[in-house]
Amino acid sequence: MENFDYYNPTKIIFGRGVESRVGAETRVYSKKILLHYGGGSIKKSGLYERVVQSLKAAEIEWVELSGVQPNPRLSLVRDGIKLCREQGIDFILAVGGGSVIDSAKAIAVGVPYSGEVWDFFSAKTVPERSLPVGVVLTIPAAGSESSRSSVITNEEGWLKWGLNSDFNRPRFAIMNPELTYSLPPYQTACGAVDIMAHVMERYFTDVPHVDLTDRLCEAVLKTMIRNTQLVMQKPDNYDARAEMMWSGTLAHNDLLSTGRVGDWAVHLIEQELSAIYDVAHGAGLAVVFPAWMKYTLRRNVAKFIQFAVRVWDVEYDFDDPERTAREGIRRLESFYRTIGMPTNLRELQVPDDRLAEMAAKSIKPWLTSVGGVSRFSREDVLAVLELAR
Amino acid sequence: MENFDYYNPTKIIFGRGVESRVGAETRVYSKKILLHYGGGSIKKSGLYERVVQSLKAAEIEWVELSGVQPNPRLSLVRDGIKLCREQGIDFILAVGGGSVIDSAKAIAVGVPYSGEVWDFFSAKTVPERSLPVGVVLTIPAAGSESSRSSVITNEEGWLKWGLNSDFNRPRFAIMNPELTYSLPPYQTACGAVDIMAHVMERYFTDVPHVDLTDRLCEAVLKTMIRNTQLVMQKPDNYDARAEMMWSGTLAHNDLLSTGRVGDWAVHLIEQELSAIYDVAHGAGLAVVFPAWMKYTLRRNVAKFIQFAVRVWDVEYDFDDPERTAREGIRRLESFYRTIGMPTNLRELQVPDDRLAEMAAKSIKPWLTSVGGVSRFSREDVLAVLELAR
Repeated sequence: MENFDYYNPTKIIFGRGVESRVGAETRVYSKKILLHYGGGSIKKSGLYERVVQSLKAAEIEWVELSGVQPNPRLSLVRDGIKLCREQGIDFILAVGGGSVIDSAKAIAVGVPYSGEVWDFFSAKTVPERSLPVGVVLTIPAAGSESSRSSVITNEEGWLKWGLNSDFNRPRFAIMNPELTYSLPPYQTACGAVDIMAHVMERYFTDVPHVDLTDRLCEAVLKTMIRNTQLVMQKPDNYDARAEMMWSGTLAHNDLLSTGRVGDWAVHLIEQELSAIYDVAHGAGLAVVFPAWMKYTLRRNVAKFIQFAVRVWDVEYDFDDPERTAREGIRRLESFYRTIGMPTNLRELQVPDDRLAEMAAKSIKPWLTSVGGVSRFSREDVLAVLELAR
Repeated sequence: MENFDYYNPTKIIFGRGVESRVGAETRVYSKKILLHYGGGSIKKSGLYERVVQSLKAAEIEWVELSGVQPNPRLSLVRDGIKLCREQGIDFILAVGGGSVIDSAKAIAVGVPYSGEVWDFFSAKTVPERSLPVGVVLTIPAAGSESSRSSVITNEEGWLKWGLNSDFNRPRFAIMNPELTYSLPPYQTACGAVDIMAHVMERYFTDVPHVDLTDRLCEAVLKTMIRNTQLVMQKPDNYDARAEMMWSGTLAHNDLLSTGRVGDWAVHLIEQELSAIYDVAHGAGLAVVFPAWMKYTLRRNVAKFIQFAVRVWDVEYDFDDPERTAREGIRRLESFYRTIGMPTNLRELQVPDDRLAEMAAKSIKPWLTSVGGVSRFSREDVLAVLELAR
């Protein structure tokens, strides 16, 4: 086990009806806020109305910035920064999923910074302060509600890059599983894949003796496997939605990173798919993860066997242990298909004529490889993408 | 799953050598502190010297209060409060195990309170502020390093009562597993029992559909079973000590309570054993928990079967499912014996002539039963203690 610091001060407010507390929780920090959201879905569902009622009751003034898209754009972040400065706003309330929250975080670090906000994402500098951010979560997936991560897409060059900083951790996250009932099956499934990917990126470490965090990872994965299927059968199953939602937070709040090194190659490879083809992040991960596993299996076959046995209940094959590992990957793919996810680029309707370009872009200009454990070269990434065809 | 708030802002600093950071972490809060500890063990181990060197380097002035005993006493808490007020101290650094930390927390809530600190423990009132507390942990057991709990013994009547409050959460916890190498086997085992008890008090809930937290609980328990045995074989096994230490924190930081109601009858029954006979808390728990399980088994047999199958790898008995559950309890007792713990009052050298008194005292004067799930009457508690003879 490696040395670590763990600090996650996001206050979680979880359960039925908790969005009514947003005004009181926000009032601790601010009297004038930016209300940041996506399109019309929060208006259609009635959530918008409940949020603004709660803000009014707490005597909070707000300015609205809507229009956040999946793979949130730098241009809107810049608009948000400008708006906050003009209006003297000192708090950002994100109502939505990971894209809205990531956009809010980017605005929050940008407002008090005199330079260009993209500097943080292009690793030119690191944030030293930010506005506080609060969240009302509507999509369990990105884990952004308590994570230190924000991923923004720069339309110039379609660069989808991330910023990891403790300044990115929201002050509070209001999470009502009922708000997720109306998510379409495809989006629910994409969220499930993303949550499980956040766990698996951490799980396949090469740090030895990480018993506790291995088992915590397995706990989240097994919970997701069962409850995603329950939700697919019955979208308004409260308890199953709640299990998914809380899993989504724990998958990415860094508890599961304690004492170990994560990989993240799959996320970084997938980001290039999303950036070029604007595919849903979860669907892209469902395609890339099994291919990554097949390519990297033999580097740490014991861990893949453990994954198969403990997560997928594969019986250990004493004659051919590696077959145990392969069966685990097969069951993961089968699970993805059960919940309607693609498992190859063809199903994702991504052509195969730009694989080399994606492979090249997956390695950031200031790095020589991708993946904290994988350490993949451009050739390795290309081989993974070929396996994903 | 029930609604919940979860907020745990304690910063964890974990690993080899991290005690060298205590000065810098403390300096964030204070320039003049109370250094609170137990007896001479931290001097013998050299930890005291390393801590004061780090404080000096950070230009922090300190006043010392040592002499904390197991089952920490109210009289010393009162001394600490007086000392802090006289000296204008605004931060308390606890160097030690749960007793030292609990004592520090009690001083911290007492200093800014104009009344008598015992008011908080006797549920007369609740804290509205406290001094910040930092921790250098030397014993993985109580989980006090990030918990909201403090338990103090009032020598007048030997009342061992607890205060649960978010003001009790330390600001940081410095945790170096190497510091636990020198713990004697008995104390190590007591700590393991306490950690597992914190999980089991939460595990045996009657709230349905708590998949994720059930599995997280099982993850901690399985980790403890394996690693306690490794430590018993080799006290300076760093990784196994580290797994125990991090498990101890997660067992009691309330993550495993999210969405569920815990019981805590066993803790409250054991507190009477400790208060009257001054036995080690962990040893008392090893005696009471199996007895509680046998007494309450049939109230929720499915949960005890799950415990047996998932935690103890008992094969499900299709002919007699309840036998599966009983086998789980048997394996727990067997595990306790393996690590040198008593499993009945006789082995604990506690006579059986005051069981009725302990049963009566286990129910607080302002309550009518004990246990959030058990809801035990005095007669139920007596029956448990009889089973533990």
